[in-house]
Amino acid sequence: MKFNNRNVQISNSAIIGDNVRIGDDTVIYDNVIIGDNTIIANNCIIGEPVNDYYSNVNYKNPETIISKNSLIRSHSIIYADSKFGENFSTGHRVTIREKTIFGENCRVGTLSDIQGYSDFGDYCWLHSNVHIGQQSKIGNYVFIYPYVVLTNDPHPPSNICKGPTIGDYSQIAVGTVVLPDISIGEHVLIGANSVVTRNIDDYSLVTGNPAKRIKDVRDLKSKKNGESHYPWPENFSRGMPWENIGYNKWLNKND
Amino acid sequence: MKFNNRNVQISNSAIIGDNVRIGDDTVIYDNVIIGDNTIIANNCIIGEPVNDYYSNVNYKNPETIISKNSLIRSHSIIYADSKFGENFSTGHRVTIREKTIFGENCRVGTLSDIQGYSDFGDYCWLHSNVHIGQQSKIGNYVFIYPYVVLTNDPHPPSNICKGPTIGDYSQIAVGTVVLPDISIGEHVLIGANSVVTRNIDDYSLVTGNPAKRIKDVRDLKSKKNGESHYPWPENFSRGMPWENIGYNKWLNKND
Amino acid sequence: MKFNNRNVQISNSAIIGDNVRIGDDTVIYDNVIIGDNTIIANNCIIGEPVNDYYSNVNYKNPETIISKNSLIRSHSIIYADSKFGENFSTGHRVTIREKTIFGENCRVGTLSDIQGYSDFGDYCWLHSNVHIGQQSKIGNYVFIYPYVVLTNDPHPPSNICKGPTIGDYSQIAVGTVVLPDISIGEHVLIGANSVVTRNIDDYSLVTGNPAKRIKDVRDLKSKKNGESHYPWPENFSRGMPWENIGYNKWLNKND
Repeated sequence: MKFNNRNVQISNSAIIGDNVRIGDDTVIYDNVIIGDNTIIANNCIIGEPVNDYYSNVNYKNPETIISKNSLIRSHSIIYADSKFGENFSTGHRVTIREKTIFGENCRVGTLSDIQGYSDFGDYCWLHSNVHIGQQSKIGNYVFIYPYVVLTNDPHPPSNICKGPTIGDYSQIAVGTVVLPDISIGEHVLIGANSVVTRNIDDYSLVTGNPAKRIKDVRDLKSKKNGESHYPWPENFSRGMPWENIGYNKWLNKND
Repeated sequence: MKFNNRNVQISNSAIIGDNVRIGDDTVIYDNVIIGDNTIIANNCIIGEPVNDYYSNVNYKNPETIISKNSLIRSHSIIYADSKFGENFSTGHRVTIREKTIFGENCRVGTLSDIQGYSDFGDYCWLHSNVHIGQQSKIGNYVFIYPYVVLTNDPHPPSNICKGPTIGDYSQIAVGTVVLPDISIGEHVLIGANSVVTRNIDDYSLVTGNPAKRIKDVRDLKSKKNGESHYPWPENFSRGMPWENIGYNKWLNKND
Repeated sequence: MKFNNRNVQISNSAIIGDNVRIGDDTVIYDNVIIGDNTIIANNCIIGEPVNDYYSNVNYKNPETIISKNSLIRSHSIIYADSKFGENFSTGHRVTIREKTIFGENCRVGTLSDIQGYSDFGDYCWLHSNVHIGQQSKIGNYVFIYPYVVLTNDPHPPSNICKGPTIGDYSQIAVGTVVLPDISIGEHVLIGANSVVTRNIDDYSLVTGNPAKRIKDVRDLKSKKNGESHYPWPENFSRGMPWENIGYNKWLNKND
């Protein structure tokens, strides 16, 4: 229903892989590279020109790379000078600015706003309406939930721009604000609406404003069955690389 | 100004009522039913195909029902397999996914993101930028304010998905997060930026992170006149079914 | 790349200045005035008809004024009956409703939602996803960060609508909610995820839910160099009118 070649605009300098489907009313600007088997849904803009475009008459659009097997849902805007690994997917109305790099198997939810100049590892899942300030660095297997904001200005307004660093396997619950230049360890769990003002050690559960350490996540027991859910990879594998062999076997295999 | 039949795409299988106006650049996909006197503004997508569409060559779009006297403002995306009662209205850029059911006389504000698999009663008003996680159940006359999130995963990430339940007449103020599987009673008032971690009794005012009960809403006095505003239906009737006869008479009539 | 006159719709009653560029798929409705050297990017709607349009057959679109040297980024919706001073700029997908007045040199970030009936001074910078309720009054040199909400209903739902007032030079950090009818002084700094429930004196640093005064902002020292960053205009001038001469000289000159 969406792929009728109606009002699709593709730059002559774009390189489109095999078996790519591009939805109606989508625009692909200059120097975009799209990998095989990728779907760009309707009303998207891929390779959005960066700011310089509005003032520089000799503007040349930087390269944008969307790798194979990706799915960009409708009304998303992806700036030029960004790169996405295989199996990337987005919700609707995502905005991703220049100098954003995603690893493989990442997801970005509806309305998320990635301000650019940020790196993500593999298997990062950003849910709806996540705001990633510039100069953020996110590891692998990191899940970020709605309305989380990663900030980068320690005393606003200033000319300093230092985003947070988030370690592998960490979970940032809804509505949390992470202050600039903060380092969050691995396997951390941050509760809803927290304000993270200090560096957080591995395996910490923190909550509140300002966020305080409650306990080790491994000591957090499920209300339902009294068992520990964390480290979560031991209990959740859907879409993860350990899906078929289990986390501990997978870890050992990769050692 | 908006209804010039310019680039309007309507599936042959859509059923369009009498006196329906459809704005420029709007797409109506297969098996959409639109009731009489409804307005779908410009740049909307109604009956957005569900995920299966991207992989199933025999995909058939499920039914989408927008009832009579509704107004869908521009740039909204409403998925197939959803149903909306009479007098439904939205702001701009609303996203509503499949298996969402709304009763009559409901409103959904600009940028709200309803993840689907959720039920709403009658006369629910969602303001701008409300996020409703899957498996939520909302009663009648419920008002939800901007940046509220209803969550559904008790220890993220997991495969459990149990949204909250919200009773009739309750008010959820801006920025509040309701944790999964929580039950909020009737006539409850939840203060701004709260995190609701426990079930809430009828007529409670709760605030904070974690949210704590402050008092009975009926004991909350207005700073202006020292009178109680709650239960709010006794003092607010605009657009409500008791608008012309008063809440108490209306209640008695319905007994 | 964006300015190909493709599917651009401009009302005959619009007045377009010299050297204005209008992007593909943009609509300019009746009675819009656009100043010289302004750029309206692609997929925008300028002069969106107000509510009355849907019901009044004799509807006449009120005037919309976008002044010279402005840049409206793609997918933004600006309602009729609004006015913007020179050098106005927006991110993507901004929604600004009727009876909004901005002074000169203001910026509004991606996804911000301005509900109308509000006034802004000069040099206001709203970052991404700011929500401004109706009847708000914002001074000059005010910075508002993502997911801030200015509210206007003291005991929801009611028919009272009184937004906050924010004084010159104040900074409202991410995720903060300002309650209705609150007056925030000048040079105030409000920390992340705060809930502002009382009037705030000039030069106060406040944080928390409910927000409490921590100290005078002039006593807040940088962790890096032990120096005070506030009043911030003494240490930040990019884009400000004191950029070339310094804040104190500029202040004296204007006395």
